[in-house]
Amino acid sequence: MRAVDIIRKKRDAAELSREEIAFLIDGATHDRVPDYQLAAFLMAVLWRGMTRSELAALTESMLNSGEVLDWSDLPAPKVDKHSTGGVGDKTSLVIAPIVAAGGLYVPMISGRGLGHTGGTLDKLESIPGFDVNLQLHQFRRVLSLAHCALIGQTSEIAPADKKLYALRDVTATVESPYLITASIMSKKMAEGIDALVLDVKTGDGAFMKKQEDAEYLAELMVETGARMGKKVVALITDMEQPLGRKIGNSLEVEECIEILDGKGPEDLRELCLELSAWMFVLGSSEKSVAAGRTLAAEMIASGRARDTFREVIRLQGGDSRVIEDPSRLPHAKHLARVDARRAGYVTAIHCEQVGVASMLLGGGREKKEDSVDPAVGLVLEKKIGDKVQAGENLCTVHYNLDARLVPAMRLLSASFEIGDHAAPAAPLVRKIIGA
Amino acid sequence: MRAVDIIRKKRDAAELSREEIAFLIDGATHDRVPDYQLAAFLMAVLWRGMTRSELAALTESMLNSGEVLDWSDLPAPKVDKHSTGGVGDKTSLVIAPIVAAGGLYVPMISGRGLGHTGGTLDKLESIPGFDVNLQLHQFRRVLSLAHCALIGQTSEIAPADKKLYALRDVTATVESPYLITASIMSKKMAEGIDALVLDVKTGDGAFMKKQEDAEYLAELMVETGARMGKKVVALITDMEQPLGRKIGNSLEVEECIEILDGKGPEDLRELCLELSAWMFVLGSSEKSVAAGRTLAAEMIASGRARDTFREVIRLQGGDSRVIEDPSRLPHAKHLARVDARRAGYVTAIHCEQVGVASMLLGGGREKKEDSVDPAVGLVLEKKIGDKVQAGENLCTVHYNLDARLVPAMRLLSASFEIGDHAAPAAPLVRKIIGA
Repeated sequence: MRAVDIIRKKRDAAELSREEIAFLIDGATHDRVPDYQLAAFLMAVLWRGMTRSELAALTESMLNSGEVLDWSDLPAPKVDKHSTGGVGDKTSLVIAPIVAAGGLYVPMISGRGLGHTGGTLDKLESIPGFDVNLQLHQFRRVLSLAHCALIGQTSEIAPADKKLYALRDVTATVESPYLITASIMSKKMAEGIDALVLDVKTGDGAFMKKQEDAEYLAELMVETGARMGKKVVALITDMEQPLGRKIGNSLEVEECIEILDGKGPEDLRELCLELSAWMFVLGSSEKSVAAGRTLAAEMIASGRARDTFREVIRLQGGDSRVIEDPSRLPHAKHLARVDARRAGYVTAIHCEQVGVASMLLGGGREKKEDSVDPAVGLVLEKKIGDKVQAGENLCTVHYNLDARLVPAMRLLSASFEIGDHAAPAAPLVRKIIGA
Repeated sequence: MRAVDIIRKKRDAAELSREEIAFLIDGATHDRVPDYQLAAFLMAVLWRGMTRSELAALTESMLNSGEVLDWSDLPAPKVDKHSTGGVGDKTSLVIAPIVAAGGLYVPMISGRGLGHTGGTLDKLESIPGFDVNLQLHQFRRVLSLAHCALIGQTSEIAPADKKLYALRDVTATVESPYLITASIMSKKMAEGIDALVLDVKTGDGAFMKKQEDAEYLAELMVETGARMGKKVVALITDMEQPLGRKIGNSLEVEECIEILDGKGPEDLRELCLELSAWMFVLGSSEKSVAAGRTLAAEMIASGRARDTFREVIRLQGGDSRVIEDPSRLPHAKHLARVDARRAGYVTAIHCEQVGVASMLLGGGREKKEDSVDPAVGLVLEKKIGDKVQAGENLCTVHYNLDARLVPAMRLLSASFEIGDHAAPAAPLVRKIIGA
């Protein structure tokens, strides 16, 4: 078998065999197929797409390029949730404790923020001492004790994805829904889970701006999971405005604690309950989504989800007193406000711009090598549908450096649209795929 | 400027600027842009194609990646011919001496054979002692003395093409007519010529099986040359059967000497006269193609073309006695014959298969690293339109190794089609583009 023949076949839109795909991915993992052939292959895939069985073969080859975790000794189903990324999208920190408190195991391997979107690892690291870089034996220990653990990708998990992702990033082949699917699903399946709930974002603040693109990606991921014998459901959810009110790493942890305290913004609580409910259903804790919601709500009301989060923070070396005293989280030195230029109703919030503003303040990364400032961010004082007076504060900016404030403010003041009539926000969950 | 943005732009079918193309090619030449980004770019070009101005910019960047030869001190126009390759396609060895003898300069830089097609350098090297690896100062010396010189590509000429060609070969991006055009034209323009006649082959034995593909490639090359201020004409010529009767390196040299002696097969002489005539016209030696043909025929009849070939062989270190005594060329040890299974007329000769048979005998290369046996090859005793008796010899096989004869014979006996009615061969020159 020769890599060039496999590239040619894909280039000519023929279907590749499992063996051909395994040859390429195995060659990538063990440096037997050079990067330039992988790059040409990736561009050919972006061009020609993949059949569903090619995609399943690609995902399995990438999965099997590394370790597949095995929790069969743990006495309950293992479930996880994955989001395609958004602005203020912090549900992992709420859902993992809820579902763990409800009896399932959540072995969650997350990523960092890039561009206008945040990342779970960055948020967790704003908790003083919290260690996301656990060894696999430590990951196992936290998971068995707390029923959930939250870490970053290790070198043992899907090394082929690590290599291909780095190549995609520099060869303009990131956007292929097939390559996205294989990347996400190989990593998630390597977690050794039985079921997965996907939160596929769509709208201005998402990577998939168009709902049809989000749905297509969701279908690919659900079918790929099913072909690998896993229960997978995808929720297409709205990202036309940020989720919740707080954006920025420690601010988002703060808001998650609010939710776990039974407070916090309605939209964030709603999505956390819905996603948790689906995890309970797929994990066989409950028969219906309605019952799953009730169980999730109970985990919040009883304080058990909050206790679980506290325990995870403690077990992963973090300062668990932040749960009772969020002032222990890092805070920015200065506040600024974005004033409404006129009275009326907020009709739109340019979600990607708001995410970029948070990044510019230092809360996110423009390039992968950048470091983040955990303290900075934004608090939306008004969301879509809210009434505002002229001069009223739309958004409080938490910042540390004046130089970073200027470009962020420029974006933020252009991010709010105010009209004469109240336009209700779009429904949060737009569609469910795979149920 | 970043390579990834240029790749993305081409991927999205936008037009690249001269600066963007120069950035990539300059980066390729000086190892500033890694091979994996070039590979992704090449696949994106194969997918999206190029506009004519992108193609001109690519060709110019590749041309300027190395030395552009300057013969302005030589007192006549410099012209060349390039063929896209075929079976038995040996015209260079005839044309260069004819046109040189007619007063123009022919600084010809050629390639080697690959797959079913032969290469000028391999043929020349079958002449004992002939050195195709001249230094540029030696090239200049031979050219100024004999009016023509025949060498292989040097590292100084279009190094970007060398790099990109190697990458195309292993990334299944050879076939793009844009990349083919830039590769051919950058090398030919680097020869420092004023005019170029292209022999674009089409038919079973050519790379472009379909005439419309050959015409498209010819149009791209003619326009690219014109944009660079050169006179370029392309002849679309037939490659449904091998050109002439002899295939194989020393056998082809032998046949070229026959033509220069005023003998040899009609089709080969005809094409040599036609191509030479166009070179005389583009090089301003004659006003019309008819007058060019007369001049070319005179160069043969007077023996001046043969004298020039003898002189070139001598100047490049070869045994020039082969002109008078072709038995000094290497000859194969054994002969075999391909018998006609029935009586009738030859209606088709599967040209690519015949080329592959010659390669299998050792006359060509399957892989670039292979060496060639100069002595082996085939002599077609019958061509399309010829009458045959059952059991009559269709083709004499010149071979050295029994093991190589078997697969070659299997192909050859399946290569001749014999029918009841004489079908005339297709016209040799199908179309002229750019005149």
